[in-house]
Amino acid sequence: MTPEDFRKAGHRLIDWIADYRASVDSRPVMAHTEPGAIKAKLPSSPPAHPESFEDIVEDLDRIVVPGVTTWQHPRFFGYFPSNALLSSVLGDYVSTGFGVIGLAWQSSPALTEVEEVVTDWMRQMLGLSDAWSGVINDTASTSTLVALLCARERASNYSLSRGGLQSVDQPLVVYASAQSHSSVEKAALLAGFGKENVRIVSQDASYAMRADVLADMVQADIADGRRPCAVVATTGTTTSTAFDPIDAIARVAKLRDLWLHVDAAMAGSAMILPEYRYLWNGVEGADSVIVNAHKWLGAVFDCTLYFVRDPEHLVRVMSTNPSYLQSAADGRVKNYRDWGLPLGRRFRALKLWFLIREQGVEQLQARLRRDLGNAAWLAQEIEKAPHWKILAPVPLQTLCVRHEPPGVADDALDRHTLEWAAKLNQSGDVYVTPAMLDSRWMVRVSIGAELTERKHVAQLWQLMQRAASQK
Amino acid sequence: MTPEDFRKAGHRLIDWIADYRASVDSRPVMAHTEPGAIKAKLPSSPPAHPESFEDIVEDLDRIVVPGVTTWQHPRFFGYFPSNALLSSVLGDYVSTGFGVIGLAWQSSPALTEVEEVVTDWMRQMLGLSDAWSGVINDTASTSTLVALLCARERASNYSLSRGGLQSVDQPLVVYASAQSHSSVEKAALLAGFGKENVRIVSQDASYAMRADVLADMVQADIADGRRPCAVVATTGTTTSTAFDPIDAIARVAKLRDLWLHVDAAMAGSAMILPEYRYLWNGVEGADSVIVNAHKWLGAVFDCTLYFVRDPEHLVRVMSTNPSYLQSAADGRVKNYRDWGLPLGRRFRALKLWFLIREQGVEQLQARLRRDLGNAAWLAQEIEKAPHWKILAPVPLQTLCVRHEPPGVADDALDRHTLEWAAKLNQSGDVYVTPAMLDSRWMVRVSIGAELTERKHVAQLWQLMQRAASQK
Repeated sequence: MTPEDFRKAGHRLIDWIADYRASVDSRPVMAHTEPGAIKAKLPSSPPAHPESFEDIVEDLDRIVVPGVTTWQHPRFFGYFPSNALLSSVLGDYVSTGFGVIGLAWQSSPALTEVEEVVTDWMRQMLGLSDAWSGVINDTASTSTLVALLCARERASNYSLSRGGLQSVDQPLVVYASAQSHSSVEKAALLAGFGKENVRIVSQDASYAMRADVLADMVQADIADGRRPCAVVATTGTTTSTAFDPIDAIARVAKLRDLWLHVDAAMAGSAMILPEYRYLWNGVEGADSVIVNAHKWLGAVFDCTLYFVRDPEHLVRVMSTNPSYLQSAADGRVKNYRDWGLPLGRRFRALKLWFLIREQGVEQLQARLRRDLGNAAWLAQEIEKAPHWKILAPVPLQTLCVRHEPPGVADDALDRHTLEWAAKLNQSGDVYVTPAMLDSRWMVRVSIGAELTERKHVAQLWQLMQRAASQK
Repeated sequence: MTPEDFRKAGHRLIDWIADYRASVDSRPVMAHTEPGAIKAKLPSSPPAHPESFEDIVEDLDRIVVPGVTTWQHPRFFGYFPSNALLSSVLGDYVSTGFGVIGLAWQSSPALTEVEEVVTDWMRQMLGLSDAWSGVINDTASTSTLVALLCARERASNYSLSRGGLQSVDQPLVVYASAQSHSSVEKAALLAGFGKENVRIVSQDASYAMRADVLADMVQADIADGRRPCAVVATTGTTTSTAFDPIDAIARVAKLRDLWLHVDAAMAGSAMILPEYRYLWNGVEGADSVIVNAHKWLGAVFDCTLYFVRDPEHLVRVMSTNPSYLQSAADGRVKNYRDWGLPLGRRFRALKLWFLIREQGVEQLQARLRRDLGNAAWLAQEIEKAPHWKILAPVPLQTLCVRHEPPGVADDALDRHTLEWAAKLNQSGDVYVTPAMLDSRWMVRVSIGAELTERKHVAQLWQLMQRAASQK
């Protein structure tokens, strides 16, 4: 495809995407697809000869679109808002169009330096002090793995340069609450700590980690000859947006020399609102923090901000320096390859740069405040309604909801919950996520898609009531 | 930005990118940028209010473009060909434009199923048997880390579900050659093996791993009470495109129950040519294989194919299953979140799908054969020229070259090499990568950018001779 072919096909595609985006609210939110149905429509072998671009676009309409869940739908209340604001989409188009790769600074200086600037913009927007340095990773899962690897190497005084984790005498222990994201346990297991050395710290009535229990568990591990290594505190848990008390946890971490990693993947976006920053009081005492710009904030996936206070330590754990990556500039520049797992890096800063510039900080703040208002409104409506319950505090935009008709309890209640949630999702009108809280199913309503206005939330509430009352 | 604003700005941007791509050969290949120069042009704080799209595009021209190395330039002979064919760029635009995320199958069925189909197309194109299952990861670095984690867990009988790596009695050992990519040692250290348990297997005259030495080292480790765990064999090393003897290594691996990971990141693309597949004879005896479709083949970065023979083992190491990700379809579908590190996944299959369909397999093959012909031609020219040496076999498209004027040796020769390479790169006319071979600097010439024709290679050769002969 020549640049001129690309120009033609690209215009066609821009229109196609603009049309898709303009029509999201006319599409089912959840894809209506049977397992294997898409696969069955595709040839099982690759074509030997070129196909026309029109044929490919036709297959997008015929095969792909019916099989994608409409994450950008105004009545998408599932998982979390994964906003992909169109300015950030265009920023990513530039990255992809360039076809450049970050390996070392020299392999594309702008890729590194725009990232330095934009991560610092984000730092300021989140109200973090200038003691933090940022880098863009793909996801929170990967970033939490990096954090726990850094914790492991700090606690073991760089065992990787010697006999590895097996040469460390005392078992290293990681702490998190049962409400922490599944990626935390996954990261701990992949980093080699082992399930027996992952402690689940119990939670209070608001589903937040109990710092006093953490302190006791750490004490007990020390008494048993283990070495407490890291604690992961969550700023806005996945299930109920609970806020672990960072300040109190940071005090324990400091006293016991634990690495404190703050997972603010979803709720971190709210920290661009100064009035919400009390929710992570004490964050300056952490060693690492993650915020997914690709969730509520609106940068198209993938774009996780990973902030650290000691970049030299990060580089010491992650660095490699083969001859084919060396350049004369090395002493004077950042080589982000040594800040994370992959060597090759996309020009991810562009999507964030476009987003922040096209929106401006105040417009980003206004949208988040709109969503917080909508969540508060829905919480009030639900609380007023008979047999409906809000099961956890609603500090931000996620509601944990259950319809509890008289006489329906335990397993029957679980069945009822899953039934009306499935009915909602299968209708294609809205999308919500069933999840477990206190070992019982409930429905998470996560508000904050870019296009979600009050009327969409009101529609959701009507549909919920109808689905739950139908036999 | 509304869909209509996007339509307008998107058309503008498509033209901008088409113009950029049409003019790559008029740009310097290596960016002429002083460290910090780009940063200095950007505001140190984010804007409070929206900026116009035109201002942003203007800054692309003014600040970003002069700071990007032109990887798509026809005279880019650095690092490796990182082709970003424009059809694959458009495929990625669809992924980004959708703004969908893969978490579970249900969160976007098409994202999973198109990936299943396209990775199987790639399997067939590479001539791998149907005993392999594929998944798309971001990079080779990440995929090699996944492979070594899987090796660790197989050798330790899933220590992650118990006391972790620290609970394993015998030290686990990983083997690779000194020519293996820097990401291999990095992955081994991050996986917790420790530098003392990473063995460098010596190489033969062609820079390929010696399987007999490997067998001896494994034997010695067993005698010393250690547990050989994994061997990483490279199909096309970074420095000289050496091919480790997979067949012989696989026999050692089988005998000693080692995990065999084949790193074919760069050279794997050549395996779409049946006449080159002898270079990885024995690959069916491996446990995992990586091929970067984002290198020579032409899918825009990032797009690494990771193939495994035992996906159940992979899933057992990588899986998490929290309630908020469960769905009724789980038993009947693939959940790729359990095939790698990140939970969230982009719709990366689209760029590969577009690429293969727009090109067809035969056209992809023809381009690679063109590049192989160009490399053979240049090797011949260099061998005929006085005082020029080809330092390693040229099985594919990478040449290790040195100009060795009479009376210039050792450190003086190193200085001479680095000087003429720097002169070439700073000219902006071409780009090559200096690297070390046998502890001495030489210049790598990597041929295979999409636009590189014979005449560009001839220009390179002229420029090399001129740069090396100038005082």
